[in-house]
Amino acid sequence: MKRTTKFLNSIPRGGQVQAHRSASNISVFSGIQPTGVPHLGNYLGALRQWVGIQDNSPKSARLTFCIVDLHAITQPQEAEQLRKHKTELMATLLAVGLDPRKCTVFEQSRVPAHSELMWILSCVAPMARLNRMTQWKSKLGVSSDQDSFMEKATTAGLKLGLFSYPVLQAADILIHKTTHVPVGEDQAQHLELTREIASSFNKTYKKDILKLPITLLSPAKRVMSLKDPTQKMSKSAADPASRILLTDSPKEVHDKLRKAVTDSVQGPLTYDMQNRPGLSNLIEILAHIRRRQDFGNVAKEFEDLSLKAFKDLVADAISEHLEPIRDEYEKIIKESNREVLRFVASEGERKARESAEETLAEVKEVVGI
Amino acid sequence: MKRTTKFLNSIPRGGQVQAHRSASNISVFSGIQPTGVPHLGNYLGALRQWVGIQDNSPKSARLTFCIVDLHAITQPQEAEQLRKHKTELMATLLAVGLDPRKCTVFEQSRVPAHSELMWILSCVAPMARLNRMTQWKSKLGVSSDQDSFMEKATTAGLKLGLFSYPVLQAADILIHKTTHVPVGEDQAQHLELTREIASSFNKTYKKDILKLPITLLSPAKRVMSLKDPTQKMSKSAADPASRILLTDSPKEVHDKLRKAVTDSVQGPLTYDMQNRPGLSNLIEILAHIRRRQDFGNVAKEFEDLSLKAFKDLVADAISEHLEPIRDEYEKIIKESNREVLRFVASEGERKARESAEETLAEVKEVVGI
Repeated sequence: MKRTTKFLNSIPRGGQVQAHRSASNISVFSGIQPTGVPHLGNYLGALRQWVGIQDNSPKSARLTFCIVDLHAITQPQEAEQLRKHKTELMATLLAVGLDPRKCTVFEQSRVPAHSELMWILSCVAPMARLNRMTQWKSKLGVSSDQDSFMEKATTAGLKLGLFSYPVLQAADILIHKTTHVPVGEDQAQHLELTREIASSFNKTYKKDILKLPITLLSPAKRVMSLKDPTQKMSKSAADPASRILLTDSPKEVHDKLRKAVTDSVQGPLTYDMQNRPGLSNLIEILAHIRRRQDFGNVAKEFEDLSLKAFKDLVADAISEHLEPIRDEYEKIIKESNREVLRFVASEGERKARESAEETLAEVKEVVGI
Repeated sequence: MKRTTKFLNSIPRGGQVQAHRSASNISVFSGIQPTGVPHLGNYLGALRQWVGIQDNSPKSARLTFCIVDLHAITQPQEAEQLRKHKTELMATLLAVGLDPRKCTVFEQSRVPAHSELMWILSCVAPMARLNRMTQWKSKLGVSSDQDSFMEKATTAGLKLGLFSYPVLQAADILIHKTTHVPVGEDQAQHLELTREIASSFNKTYKKDILKLPITLLSPAKRVMSLKDPTQKMSKSAADPASRILLTDSPKEVHDKLRKAVTDSVQGPLTYDMQNRPGLSNLIEILAHIRRRQDFGNVAKEFEDLSLKAFKDLVADAISEHLEPIRDEYEKIIKESNREVLRFVASEGERKARESAEETLAEVKEVVGI
């Protein structure tokens, strides 16, 4: 693992796990979809928190971060593209500071026990409960009332995988005896389902095999699109200028910030999510980068700046923060380092299999298979 | 494998695969749920056909017979009971004449690739199509109209596993590049779905990875309950006298036959499924045992017998046919032979993994995971 050390420890750290330092048997799990190089929203909302957890957890804690390629295929994918995205994501995870000596970073499809537990949990997961999940509806663009479920599913061409994937997500979490799951707000519903499935399994088989995990919400809950501040920053939005990628150059960051949708209000800059959502999103981004939550005060400090000057200031802050990540990424993604990336993925697979198979064996024992 | 040879070649054989002798790349797959020692309906409808296929297939054919424990858990199970049932089923499969040197006999839950492919196929399997399957409805006792799907699912406590299991069944079949599936009539619908899923997968990923299997219907389509000839002979019926187990003693067979529900029609015995279903079921059983399909002629041969005498004659025929199977079973199930059973299961697992992982690797390649 020596060759990977140069990838590490290059960015400022931090996190929210101080409270858990004293707890024993900590097991943290989180996943991210391989949609290529992550954007600033992924970073502030998740990846930075993962690194913070890594650097602030006791040595005994089990930290598992998963590239969830099996979830990615619930939507149509092009094989070569998906493989490229997985490589880019792995490189990014190392570039932001995840250290394979301290945590397990792996690809979901390389650990069969995730799919195996998914099936077993399917046998206790109620259809009616899955129908109440909102994500498949939003991905298919159907409304949320429950009256004509099958009609809507038929019209929208709903596939089983998109409907049942919260159960795979539950398996991902439960198979590593996870105690804490750092996730975004939009995943809180899935965590609740995970706990219900775990309870239901334990009750059915009269033994406390599966642990009920706690949700760790990130302080940076929602980073919004630069082009439409009512929408989350997203890889799937059509306009690339709506998001900052972690690998964007300073020029790209400045260009995107300059074109960011704000407003035409005159007078001092103010933090006002209701009436000035675009500006407030920029204020929040700046605050998050500086690890501050007092958005109003941050706005106050810069109230006399012109909007253009403020945008430049935010762009500088982002660029400066991303610089070491971008540099690391460029080093890691080099063709000459592919062997190292493959080694990291294999090591991650090995460790994840060990952890997952231990739980699966206990599960199979009580189920009788 | 030497110690297992004594289990083999002890019963009369036969089958329906002559037509396939010349075909190349034959791969036969079928599965049976571990509900303990199989009954006469399982035997005449499936197991005897499996042995016939084994004994009449070219050496190059791949023959795979699966104890589908992952399907069993879609209904509540007691762990110890399920394990016992799996052992009894494995012993029966050997006792009826399956030869681990000629075919692969294995437990589904020991080959992770089945669950892994199931998830991948979930991503192409339409919900609307699964909703049209009748089996989950009949198991939950709900009617078949489609109007209030989720309402019914909710009321009946439908679990995801029971709803989605035809997709696992498709994975079971497709992962072994199966060309022929010997199944009962009630499974024809699932085979049709399997073909649709395979087509849809091949179309989505623009490569003919998955083979579309052909259904081989057994000549003994329906062996009915001895207590209610409108119902199939079944392990789940409350009255044990409704079914003949393959391990029943001659006395048990005679007792059950004597108590079999027939009718009070006077005059000669006739084959008349409509008006004399109980008697006709016994005629069919006798015919199947003698490998005949001309039920009317069989009835004619015995038309002068009293009902009691005919029942004794059928009981004799069954007992005589089952005797070598029962003897083999008693030998195999002995505690001293458990090591052999475990070895057969391990060998089966090894061979099934090899075949399944080959297909899974091709599937993952085109999917990009």
